[in-house]
Amino acid sequence: MNDTIFPLIHGMSTSGNCHKIRMLLEHLDIPYRWNEVDIMTGGTQTPEFLAMNPNGKVPVVEIAPDRYLSESNAVLCHYGEGTSLLPGDPWVRARCLQWLFFEQYSHEPCIAVARFICRFLDADHPRRAELPQLHDRGYKALAVMEQQLATDDFLVEQHYTVADIALFAYTHRAHEGGYQLGEFPAIRAWLERVQATPGFVAMPDTHPAS
Amino acid sequence: MNDTIFPLIHGMSTSGNCHKIRMLLEHLDIPYRWNEVDIMTGGTQTPEFLAMNPNGKVPVVEIAPDRYLSESNAVLCHYGEGTSLLPGDPWVRARCLQWLFFEQYSHEPCIAVARFICRFLDADHPRRAELPQLHDRGYKALAVMEQQLATDDFLVEQHYTVADIALFAYTHRAHEGGYQLGEFPAIRAWLERVQATPGFVAMPDTHPAS
Repeated sequence: MNDTIFPLIHGMSTSGNCHKIRMLLEHLDIPYRWNEVDIMTGGTQTPEFLAMNPNGKVPVVEIAPDRYLSESNAVLCHYGEGTSLLPGDPWVRARCLQWLFFEQYSHEPCIAVARFICRFLDADHPRRAELPQLHDRGYKALAVMEQQLATDDFLVEQHYTVADIALFAYTHRAHEGGYQLGEFPAIRAWLERVQATPGFVAMPDTHPAS
Repeated sequence: MNDTIFPLIHGMSTSGNCHKIRMLLEHLDIPYRWNEVDIMTGGTQTPEFLAMNPNGKVPVVEIAPDRYLSESNAVLCHYGEGTSLLPGDPWVRARCLQWLFFEQYSHEPCIAVARFICRFLDADHPRRAELPQLHDRGYKALAVMEQQLATDDFLVEQHYTVADIALFAYTHRAHEGGYQLGEFPAIRAWLERVQATPGFVAMPDTHPAS
């Protein structure tokens, strides 16, 4: 098998959006290559990177020679298609996508951004002023998840899907952004359930040298 | 044909996210019903509404009895599936989804939110302080679109897809949020191209009484 047909992920290992792709490919046992990109030192703003993704964000996946796909949840759908992670039943699929868009609009901008501010910026950075509002909105997003997971093992009925991968990525590191999950027992049980899925791979605490 | 099998959209007619659904269903010539919901008077926070969408946002579409689908772009995919609006080719599909997630993460939170502040809040509302930063980010999103549309008639190759519907919704009202499209000739030509598609329906300037 020629190396060039393995997907090549340009990503930062400590980014939840990038880690989603690793979780997906490991679960599906798809071989891949990984190019570490450091967003903190401008790695996504170089001419070479912007040629792959004009929006200047990781992850970008070279799914075939000269075919670059960005937006983590679009990548999840691309590789999930035809597998149990994105079933063909229209109503199941619709809810998988509903959660993927929920994640990018109502969850990630609060949970991931709070983590970014707390973990990657200086302790006296002015963006810390955003935290109270982010927490207000983030806890609402967590409450929406809690309600679903109080009755179901996974976000869409009783099966592990791309929705669980997408929401796991930042929820399991929410504490790094100052969130407490004490009042979300169903989410905590679900995090453990996801961690027990075949091929589960933990997010590294620090990213390797790029 | 029984009325109950027509999709029932709970939406606000002047919301771009809701108007996407109307554009889609009109293009596909799918009959539907519309229940006007006023987000400005708490219409999305009632117990009845939250039972349909715990996230408290329009649109929500009753796609079948007791099956409620939220997230506008998930609805586009649900009804677009199997039509030319969401083709089966994996690479075309992947890029459609890439644009849909781009829209919800990098475009709508700047373009739609600026419009909301300028159009729906009082002229002296403190949220107007957010506008400079929203415009900075919004113009970057428009530049990403402009780059694609400089070479292609539509966002994904030369065909009208769900990606165009999703991005049209707020781009064509960007001026209401203080954006100028003078430096985006490819976007302006594309807006006219979308307006010329079969079944195109304009967004109303004011929403009808609910």
